[in-house]
Amino acid sequence: MALNAPLHRQLRMGLVGGGQGAFIGRVHVMAATLDGRATLVAGALSSDPVRARESAPAYSIAPERAHGSWQEMLDAEARLPEGERIDFVTIATPNDTHFEIARAFAEAGCNVVCDKPLTRTLEQAEELAGVVARTGIVFVLTHNYTGYPLVRQARDMIRAGDLGEIQAVRACYLQGWLRRQRTPEQQRRAAWKIDPNRAGISGCFGDIGIHAYNLDRFITGLAAAEISCILHNFEPGGPLDDYGTAILRYDNGALGTLTASRISHGRENDLWIEIDGSRASLEWHQEEPNRLLARVNGQPQRLYTRAAGAEYLTPAARTFCRLPAGHPEGFLEAFANIYTAAFADMIARGQGERVDGHSLYPTVADGVDGVHFIMQCVASSREGGSWKSLHAQAAK
Amino acid sequence: MALNAPLHRQLRMGLVGGGQGAFIGRVHVMAATLDGRATLVAGALSSDPVRARESAPAYSIAPERAHGSWQEMLDAEARLPEGERIDFVTIATPNDTHFEIARAFAEAGCNVVCDKPLTRTLEQAEELAGVVARTGIVFVLTHNYTGYPLVRQARDMIRAGDLGEIQAVRACYLQGWLRRQRTPEQQRRAAWKIDPNRAGISGCFGDIGIHAYNLDRFITGLAAAEISCILHNFEPGGPLDDYGTAILRYDNGALGTLTASRISHGRENDLWIEIDGSRASLEWHQEEPNRLLARVNGQPQRLYTRAAGAEYLTPAARTFCRLPAGHPEGFLEAFANIYTAAFADMIARGQGERVDGHSLYPTVADGVDGVHFIMQCVASSREGGSWKSLHAQAAK
Amino acid sequence: MALNAPLHRQLRMGLVGGGQGAFIGRVHVMAATLDGRATLVAGALSSDPVRARESAPAYSIAPERAHGSWQEMLDAEARLPEGERIDFVTIATPNDTHFEIARAFAEAGCNVVCDKPLTRTLEQAEELAGVVARTGIVFVLTHNYTGYPLVRQARDMIRAGDLGEIQAVRACYLQGWLRRQRTPEQQRRAAWKIDPNRAGISGCFGDIGIHAYNLDRFITGLAAAEISCILHNFEPGGPLDDYGTAILRYDNGALGTLTASRISHGRENDLWIEIDGSRASLEWHQEEPNRLLARVNGQPQRLYTRAAGAEYLTPAARTFCRLPAGHPEGFLEAFANIYTAAFADMIARGQGERVDGHSLYPTVADGVDGVHFIMQCVASSREGGSWKSLHAQAAK
Amino acid sequence: MALNAPLHRQLRMGLVGGGQGAFIGRVHVMAATLDGRATLVAGALSSDPVRARESAPAYSIAPERAHGSWQEMLDAEARLPEGERIDFVTIATPNDTHFEIARAFAEAGCNVVCDKPLTRTLEQAEELAGVVARTGIVFVLTHNYTGYPLVRQARDMIRAGDLGEIQAVRACYLQGWLRRQRTPEQQRRAAWKIDPNRAGISGCFGDIGIHAYNLDRFITGLAAAEISCILHNFEPGGPLDDYGTAILRYDNGALGTLTASRISHGRENDLWIEIDGSRASLEWHQEEPNRLLARVNGQPQRLYTRAAGAEYLTPAARTFCRLPAGHPEGFLEAFANIYTAAFADMIARGQGERVDGHSLYPTVADGVDGVHFIMQCVASSREGGSWKSLHAQAAK
Repeated sequence: MALNAPLHRQLRMGLVGGGQGAFIGRVHVMAATLDGRATLVAGALSSDPVRARESAPAYSIAPERAHGSWQEMLDAEARLPEGERIDFVTIATPNDTHFEIARAFAEAGCNVVCDKPLTRTLEQAEELAGVVARTGIVFVLTHNYTGYPLVRQARDMIRAGDLGEIQAVRACYLQGWLRRQRTPEQQRRAAWKIDPNRAGISGCFGDIGIHAYNLDRFITGLAAAEISCILHNFEPGGPLDDYGTAILRYDNGALGTLTASRISHGRENDLWIEIDGSRASLEWHQEEPNRLLARVNGQPQRLYTRAAGAEYLTPAARTFCRLPAGHPEGFLEAFANIYTAAFADMIARGQGERVDGHSLYPTVADGVDGVHFIMQCVASSREGGSWKSLHAQAAK
Repeated sequence: MALNAPLHRQLRMGLVGGGQGAFIGRVHVMAATLDGRATLVAGALSSDPVRARESAPAYSIAPERAHGSWQEMLDAEARLPEGERIDFVTIATPNDTHFEIARAFAEAGCNVVCDKPLTRTLEQAEELAGVVARTGIVFVLTHNYTGYPLVRQARDMIRAGDLGEIQAVRACYLQGWLRRQRTPEQQRRAAWKIDPNRAGISGCFGDIGIHAYNLDRFITGLAAAEISCILHNFEPGGPLDDYGTAILRYDNGALGTLTASRISHGRENDLWIEIDGSRASLEWHQEEPNRLLARVNGQPQRLYTRAAGAEYLTPAARTFCRLPAGHPEGFLEAFANIYTAAFADMIARGQGERVDGHSLYPTVADGVDGVHFIMQCVASSREGGSWKSLHAQAAK
Repeated sequence: MALNAPLHRQLRMGLVGGGQGAFIGRVHVMAATLDGRATLVAGALSSDPVRARESAPAYSIAPERAHGSWQEMLDAEARLPEGERIDFVTIATPNDTHFEIARAFAEAGCNVVCDKPLTRTLEQAEELAGVVARTGIVFVLTHNYTGYPLVRQARDMIRAGDLGEIQAVRACYLQGWLRRQRTPEQQRRAAWKIDPNRAGISGCFGDIGIHAYNLDRFITGLAAAEISCILHNFEPGGPLDDYGTAILRYDNGALGTLTASRISHGRENDLWIEIDGSRASLEWHQEEPNRLLARVNGQPQRLYTRAAGAEYLTPAARTFCRLPAGHPEGFLEAFANIYTAAFADMIARGQGERVDGHSLYPTVADGVDGVHFIMQCVASSREGGSWKSLHAQAAK
Repeated sequence: MALNAPLHRQLRMGLVGGGQGAFIGRVHVMAATLDGRATLVAGALSSDPVRARESAPAYSIAPERAHGSWQEMLDAEARLPEGERIDFVTIATPNDTHFEIARAFAEAGCNVVCDKPLTRTLEQAEELAGVVARTGIVFVLTHNYTGYPLVRQARDMIRAGDLGEIQAVRACYLQGWLRRQRTPEQQRRAAWKIDPNRAGISGCFGDIGIHAYNLDRFITGLAAAEISCILHNFEPGGPLDDYGTAILRYDNGALGTLTASRISHGRENDLWIEIDGSRASLEWHQEEPNRLLARVNGQPQRLYTRAAGAEYLTPAARTFCRLPAGHPEGFLEAFANIYTAAFADMIARGQGERVDGHSLYPTVADGVDGVHFIMQCVASSREGGSWKSLHAQAAK
């Protein structure tokens, strides 16, 4: 779908989470509405009913659609005429609540956009996948880094064979926030991220290692075979891992390495990936997302820049740019690209068309894969790095 | 104004220009609506009435407010009840039309957001400034690069004396698009930029040199005294300059250099500025806007990164960030910051308060200064680089 | 020893290896003689006697001291009066020959400078260490990357506690040469590097992984406890590894990762290291050796540059610079710094002083440690990444 | 001449200047002897006879050839048999002494290597050029930055037409040392650089602006037509300029800008050049000399790296590399390349061959051109930036 194709109507968005002090809820709204294709109409912005309603004016949500809980919102929406109901709900809440909320909206036939990780357990993930399959809703998991134009360029170059056989992948995702001085309010908001009851069985890997893993699979298209992982907790406040590293083997014989950290001083959101193929190699850094480096022995290195309309970019890259070259795009635009792709499917579904699942956004299947990845990382680490299968069937 | 402060209501935006194929109109809308503080309700999207109306659906503008001309829109808005009228109009049209449109909306008491350069002649610019002063409207000139958080950081560091006395400024703004292969449609859209009847008396300097000049003044706060400028046309399709360079003298004795180009192969939007003070120096590049480099002899270089809430940034920098550190922000967010600052004044004016003009956005005064700058650059170049005053009184 | 301290006399250098077409022999000579502290006087420049003698003129070695074999050179030197004999021999030959040559010269009381890895087996390494201990010669292993001034800065910052407790280390050493198109002559010269009979039991890890490991230990001062390693051969011409990755555990609980490659397209000599401490973190890249990045949460990043005399550098860093800041130093100067440090000990030994072993150059102990590292990496990889001890006693 | 071609004998070097505390004398020696093609045998290392002789041991100069003055050295050398005499003298002394020393050695038939600027006046420069022409000696002016392999690559790409018509050149040379805290000893050594009696009529431009100008001409091959220049003294200790900026017009219509500074905090030796042609553009930075960026609209940017033997480099670039790609070369190697090229001519002259002047090193003609450049910059600046001719005939 072209970014600026004419619209018959704006889609209606509902938001769960995102109340005062949250970060990612606001990001979802900015991303979803960036191109004027959606408008936020309803919200259950906090698990605290008072805070939920108080947060609504900052989002310009009308009081009658500012709900005290997601259940209340679900009920209220069901009572609205179809022409007023939300077209999709975005779930931007702590990990432990994803499953219940997503299942309820999915069962009600409402399209769902959900943060990662999908659920706390693999059983939940698979159950949710079943609901999605049965109801036919559009389900989007916001592995937002796959939305960057040059990430799509990298993927397309690999699919076109430009790199030859993929042999090695190195990915890192480094942050340092866990040991930053924080205000009590910041501590309160981040508390769930180190609480196993809310974050799940992994801290750093479940939060960001999973992004690196998904990015790796999105770009390379490789099937991961098995993993050996070591997770560690360095900072007081455990027990969840705040640092970890893993070695992956892929079905085609390639080797991968993946490291994630929350305790690296001064690292902000340093996700990067390098891919070695038999014919060429690629390098991309999330903090400089408008550049992609391609190398071939014996040739000058080639630096691709993000550029709307640049003929040297593949369609999937150049049509997902909003600005001319040199006008930096960033995190928001990439996040918006996930929504843009999903909107196409939501509209198609709304018109009774079959959604073929080939749109370029992460789905519930990525969610199941990610939860499985986390489970196997933790299992491997508990056994000192023993190899664990990443094949889907191994989940059983 | 805090970015996410609660809103009583969204401001209503009208747009002139921005029709099919345009770039900057869409940018204005994304920027103005990014934080949910404004919504686009009316438009005269092209000088061609048919194209104007056809462009409306892609902006979700209702047919009854999609006008065939800006005059039609001005009349229609005047007939609406005050509670439905647009709060501001954004003028995203070729340079030669700014004056007439801006003056008409200003005379009607409508706040105006206008692209640079303000007008084609200094007389027009001063007349417009007079109208703004008389009507008391909020007038915003979109020198959008001043909206980057780290540009504001640089400005604040200089105001705080961190650099000591400013002695040298170097600014460049390099592009290469003029000699890019273009489709006929691209040529059609860019044609006005090299047409003296539409762009004005300068090409490259009037289009982007003026941004570098404004950025210099915004950051350093220096008063420019005089300029020696050489403009040149290299590419067929003249006569307007597509390359130029200038030397500036400031009132405090500092020396400046400013170079702008449309003919530098592979340069995208490479605006940068370096400032030497007696105590420290600064360096910033628009294409890597999330970084600011500060240097002091005998010390490690200090690299400031954009980071919401970072205590090492000044309030003007850290409160104009939407995303955590390491989540790249770009052109759109900086553009949006101009709108955000102006919205505060628009709301104040709407509530009958006096708008003190101290908000951090470029105003009609910057517009007059910029037009004067262009006039003097061209006059200097015609005399082989003779010195021309940049003091306001010299305009007479 | 200050770089330009007055000299009583130049040291006399002998060279084994380095004949026509070789690279590293010439590097040794340039490095050893850079400061005018040594002069090359004798050589056995190839294992082929004809080639050995033919190579001498390009080194300005007099015909009478251009020998056909290292044994011949050893004998000839022994017959010279002490005042003419070489002060040290540099061994720049394929790995499989290091042991025999080094032992012979050491037994003869001649100081030795030897390329890594020290020997092909741990038994050889330990035997050689015994000879060195017994004879008291100065023995230098050219882990040359430890000679960079900013590597020494990093080491000193850690020793001073600037980073707090070291918790994570990431090191990579990436090259791509193995799959570069090569001339037959280039193939001939590189052939030994992939031949297990000459290179030893490891290819990529034995050649460059070992450098990354040594650099890690040099900078951090951490004792490595155990390693889990996966080595792989991708490129035809095996069986030796051309790619590998490892996870390390250190005695203090820190986690390390180490990856090395010969098959990464377009990578030249990309050795880098990142170190996370509880109070700060560091990052250094060999290909940009004049820069060191230090990060602390909540502060601007600090970029240290190599600068002779800079007071913000530690003595070990700033006194090992030859050029003012901004005059790039590189590989040769770092290599020369290893020689410079060793010359101090050679002179001391020549004057009958006790050599305390605290000079800042890698010694035979590093050599034993490196060979042990390689052995355990290969052993671990053969068992699918089982953990192997890196403690010295585990070698038995 | 291949870097490692066999030698019949090492050339004998004499050095004037370079005594205790000096920087550039040591650089000359390291550069001249790096490849084993020359050896330092005689010196007059200071204008102070005591200091001159005391400095000799640090250079391993034998006492009998450590002279108290350059005149003494000149006389002594003349009395030696030809087979022992120096083949060339390197003059590394303050600017005001170049002329007298160079003329004397040239008149004696000794090849000369001399620092820039050539002389203090244009008359001296032209007289010296006459002596060189008459005697046929090899005369080298150490505009050392032309020795970088990728500078030669840039030059060759332009000569081959890869850039099309050259239209714009931007060069900067920024330093900050003048306002660094310095020890009394450092002040003593640098004092001549701000003393018009010793440095000449220009400070910053005469010292480093001249390098940028020479680099521009070397790379582009353009003839400069005229210049408009503004020089300024900011730091106490004047009157010589410590900052300056100039606009150049070339015979072919191209525009150039050139800025030099000694007062930019934290700038080390930041010489860079950017060249815009009608078909492509280039960018090179002295502080990252192993990289050259080439840009063409509509294509990925191409990053050339220095790599011995790389087929994508021109012969003049790849044969002037000593180390494999990724092994950083720097200032010394580039400086050595000037010597290497000159040695070929010295040897040819020694063998009675005609020296054709086409070797790739700067000559006395560059020296005359550079002195003229400085004169015209100062003259232009005194008239507020009036245009001054850079054509040779204008010197009369």
